Amino acid sequence: MKFKIDAVSTGGMKTVVKAGKFEIIIDEPKNLGGTDEGANPLELVLAALAGCYTVVGNLVAREMGFDLNGLNMKIEGEMNPARFAGKSSDERAGFKNINIKLLPDSSADKETLEKWALAVEDRCPVTDNITNRTPFNVEIG
Amino acid sequence: MKFKIDAVSTGGMKTVVKAGKFEIIIDEPKNLGGTDEGANPLELVLAALAGCYTVVGNLVAREMGFDLNGLNMKIEGEMNPARFAGKSSDERAGFKNINIKLLPDSSADKETLEKWALAVEDRCPVTDNITNRTPFNVEIG
Repeated sequence: MKFKIDAVSTGGMKTVVKAGKFEIIIDEPKNLGGTDEGANPLELVLAALAGCYTVVGNLVAREMGFDLNGLNMKIEGEMNPARFAGKSSDERAGFKNINIKLLPDSSADKETLEKWALAVEDRCPVTDNITNRTPFNVEIG
Repeated sequence: MKFKIDAVSTGGMKTVVKAGKFEIIIDEPKNLGGTDEGANPLELVLAALAGCYTVVGNLVAREMGFDLNGLNMKIEGEMNPARFAGKSSDERAGFKNINIKLLPDSSADKETLEKWALAVEDRCPVTDNITNRTPFNVEIG
């Protein structure tokens, strides 16, 4: 199963992504040289995690036979911008850690929700790509 | 440096993410139980990579002293949905590999662009989080 996107930037920090019929604008604030028209790339990583928890969370709740009437999430990631900025290679470029707080709206008990959260973490594709290594191939066309 | 998002789903496959003043809609097509209002979580991962290549690509081109008038990208990832669907745990849940094709609009020669691409890969936070392991903490609030 393949997923594909096409993306275009026209010389600035802004990227216009086409994912099927949907368009996603990614940008940086003006003080970082962008035009402030969209969320930044790291916020998109956290957004992808949230979207994945929703989809897999619903799937697993249905399988486990409990109601999931809604799911609020607070996600944060911490990073050091030194490598990104070309100032130092001592630390990694990306998030050093990511914390996700799940606030499910459900009548299920705590034990059930804990089992659910573990199953969702195991089956969520985005969590897998964040927590494990993924081969990455770059080609200049 | 911290990045944060808040996300809400109201019982379906759709997630509404607030990233600062920006809103991102993530959804699934109707045949997968969604309402087809936005790109899916895995497309968002690829979009985040594109956004990161644009930002770091511009930064590094400026440092190396060549013109980068635009950057087109084609990104694809391959995955097996068996684990996501709860059918098998034999394979990983997420992308098994990701390919990115960079089509820079620049007068720089091939050797310069290859050096540029290596530097961008090293300094791009999203690439780091995809290609390396990242600690991930889940809390049920």
